[in-house]
Amino acid sequence: MKYFNTFLLVLCFSASIFAQNGASDEDAFYIRKIYDKALTEGRCYDWLYDLTTQIGGRLAGSPQAAAAVEYTRQMLDTLGLDSVYLQPCMVPHWVRGDKEVVRVVNSSTMGSVDLPALSLGNSIGTGDKGITAEVIEVQGLQDLEKLGRAKIAGKIVFFNGPMDPKQIRTFNAYGGAVGQRVYGATDAAKYGAVAALVRSLTTRQDDVPHTGVSVYKDENPKVPALAISTNASNLLSDLLKKDKVNIYIRNTCKKFPDKLSHNVIGEIKGSEFPDEIILVGGHLDSWDVGSGAHDDGAGCVHAMDVLQLIKRLNYQPKRTIRCVLFMNEENGLGGGKAYSAASDAANEFHMAAIESDAGGFTPRGFSFDGHADILKPRYQQVTEWLPLLEPYGISFTTGGSGADIGPLKNQKGLLAGLRPDSQRYFDYHHTAIDTIDAVNKRELELGTAAMTSLVYLIDKYGL
Amino acid sequence: MKYFNTFLLVLCFSASIFAQNGASDEDAFYIRKIYDKALTEGRCYDWLYDLTTQIGGRLAGSPQAAAAVEYTRQMLDTLGLDSVYLQPCMVPHWVRGDKEVVRVVNSSTMGSVDLPALSLGNSIGTGDKGITAEVIEVQGLQDLEKLGRAKIAGKIVFFNGPMDPKQIRTFNAYGGAVGQRVYGATDAAKYGAVAALVRSLTTRQDDVPHTGVSVYKDENPKVPALAISTNASNLLSDLLKKDKVNIYIRNTCKKFPDKLSHNVIGEIKGSEFPDEIILVGGHLDSWDVGSGAHDDGAGCVHAMDVLQLIKRLNYQPKRTIRCVLFMNEENGLGGGKAYSAASDAANEFHMAAIESDAGGFTPRGFSFDGHADILKPRYQQVTEWLPLLEPYGISFTTGGSGADIGPLKNQKGLLAGLRPDSQRYFDYHHTAIDTIDAVNKRELELGTAAMTSLVYLIDKYGL
Repeated sequence: MKYFNTFLLVLCFSASIFAQNGASDEDAFYIRKIYDKALTEGRCYDWLYDLTTQIGGRLAGSPQAAAAVEYTRQMLDTLGLDSVYLQPCMVPHWVRGDKEVVRVVNSSTMGSVDLPALSLGNSIGTGDKGITAEVIEVQGLQDLEKLGRAKIAGKIVFFNGPMDPKQIRTFNAYGGAVGQRVYGATDAAKYGAVAALVRSLTTRQDDVPHTGVSVYKDENPKVPALAISTNASNLLSDLLKKDKVNIYIRNTCKKFPDKLSHNVIGEIKGSEFPDEIILVGGHLDSWDVGSGAHDDGAGCVHAMDVLQLIKRLNYQPKRTIRCVLFMNEENGLGGGKAYSAASDAANEFHMAAIESDAGGFTPRGFSFDGHADILKPRYQQVTEWLPLLEPYGISFTTGGSGADIGPLKNQKGLLAGLRPDSQRYFDYHHTAIDTIDAVNKRELELGTAAMTSLVYLIDKYGL
Repeated sequence: MKYFNTFLLVLCFSASIFAQNGASDEDAFYIRKIYDKALTEGRCYDWLYDLTTQIGGRLAGSPQAAAAVEYTRQMLDTLGLDSVYLQPCMVPHWVRGDKEVVRVVNSSTMGSVDLPALSLGNSIGTGDKGITAEVIEVQGLQDLEKLGRAKIAGKIVFFNGPMDPKQIRTFNAYGGAVGQRVYGATDAAKYGAVAALVRSLTTRQDDVPHTGVSVYKDENPKVPALAISTNASNLLSDLLKKDKVNIYIRNTCKKFPDKLSHNVIGEIKGSEFPDEIILVGGHLDSWDVGSGAHDDGAGCVHAMDVLQLIKRLNYQPKRTIRCVLFMNEENGLGGGKAYSAASDAANEFHMAAIESDAGGFTPRGFSFDGHADILKPRYQQVTEWLPLLEPYGISFTTGGSGADIGPLKNQKGLLAGLRPDSQRYFDYHHTAIDTIDAVNKRELELGTAAMTSLVYLIDKYGL
């Protein structure tokens, strides 16, 4: 009872605020209804359970990615939407091949020791026999020029720059360290390196290697790129302090011609302004290891569950609410690009697009982005709604939205990204342990509720 | 770099606010330093690892509780504090005995089936042979009077009231359902029940039974009290819809005479106002199953790490900062009562007392409590500091503080409870799975940082 009284107090307090900006007690009650439904009749967790345990990792171009397209289409088909369809897009087709070997083959203190490793996405293979070379450690891309070709040529460059644990938002720490993963191999190859090993992008000290995309610049030779776990990185760094270290690497990744794949789209047509689109989305592809539970199965089932809740609440939106499950965010953005190209060609207007691609943890808020012409006034407008969402622990900020919806910025609608608590995200990101066990049902459902509440307000008041 | 610029902006913005209320840029920088240290040189996780993996569950009166007293004293001894000492207290000594059996022994649809169960703390045993009786289901204490002795006498009463999943803060849902666990058996016995089974207090649907304290009222007969898992509760409820169900229960709990135990205390003497005490605390005991990682190992290592950080930062507090690890919060509050009695007898004044007893999850804020004479002005005062903590995701509210520090209220200092994100807490609470695996190092460290920051502000400005 105590809780309910507090809640009523909040409502009374809110009423006086809302009188000034259009939002009302009715909105507070409706958002409470959205949260109630999400926490009792949400389907996001069950869908994510199926997606991760029945299908698993869904790398673009893989049979699992195709199965995920079919599964989510089937699920959207059960919701009584106005339309459900697939949108074609071309995606890269990279295959990991055999289990990677990264082995210390000499060191004065240890014998032969295997380091937990994963090839980075897009990496070439070593060839069947593998390669052996001496290792040189650097702390980031900036060290390469200082060392120069004389010290790098013929060696394996080991990028050991850690994520900064002092960042409160772990994505900032990721942003500070991801360069060596994306460009480490290609930049090292410019100086004659024969391969690159990269410290896994996590603040945890463990034996779990983290994959992720790497990119080859056309002007540089291609050399294999692999991540090793943080514990392995610490070990290797220790060994290098004492002695020269040679490492044997074998991986058999291969790139095949691009393949046809699909975005999965479901929508409820707006009753008054059908041409004003409010998009909710996530990306359906994941890396091949693990089962992409947080990245980004969570975002997909969030977006699907927004539509499910809207239907279950018998809410008839004025504007078109569209769920888009993008293909190939991880290694090419094929889906995002195809979607925006088709949308621009059809002269569509996305009044808002909200992506969930930061995990299924307790939501802490939204970050808003948009074209410079509109961001300030639109952000000001949504901020007036904040008292409605603060009781649910939601705050607003400006910042990035989502990679897939980024290309929509020139339509001059408001872009938003769901911001769940970020502390655990990089424990699982791009690993074999990004599985359903790492997802808490309530935390996931609260993400759906937050997104649905924001969609409700945008739909009701427009932007 | 982007993050740092944003951070500077926040500081500039903050400066203009702080000019009005005493807090300063210096405070913002110092709190940033506290967070940096907590995230890079915090020891809370290592201590919790030892406490949970080397010692395990620490029920008051057990050898493990005594080992935990000794371990934490040793660790506090390493910190260079002004004093570390044990404070005696008497605690109950209840022992679980053999693994419990709760078995459906007839039902038309299933044969014999064992339900995952745990005796509730303080429960008597069935005797060696166990008991068998018919089951009657109720939704809570309020149903007992309606049914009356005619329907209850000779039966096992099954309390199946669920925790309300719609509560955003799970502690509110717990508060709404915990009555049947504490008083279910004794209230049912008043009507002639021979035992009570209680639905486990969690919103999860799983096979994990949750123990917790039960209380016998002197005027009622004592009958065994056990919790069964939520899945088992759902199954039993389903069976009861179809048919009569008999259940066999065997448990061999025993209560022994009270034992001597200890609170563990370490403190840094204040340089200017040594008689103004700022307490940080948690409770050292836990239930015997699992290893009490979140409840409340986390709170203990938070409190210890506050002192560790203060020493590591070479901060000389003006006021006395005292870490208290209370014994016997779970089943008697022996430690909390002994502490406040000794403190009152010594005419001490706790200017503030902050307890962490809600898990080691990402901190969302603090709730403040206190004597009616002081709560409003003190809360107003701390709220002026909020801009310093908001960048770290901290918010303030009024509400409960902590069971162990509650008796200090009449000293008219400010009481506070750390409020971590509550979504996962009742997945683990009082179970065999409340182990170190359920704790994230960064989330835990952020709790230490939040508490240390609040201690710093109270110490610097007083209350």
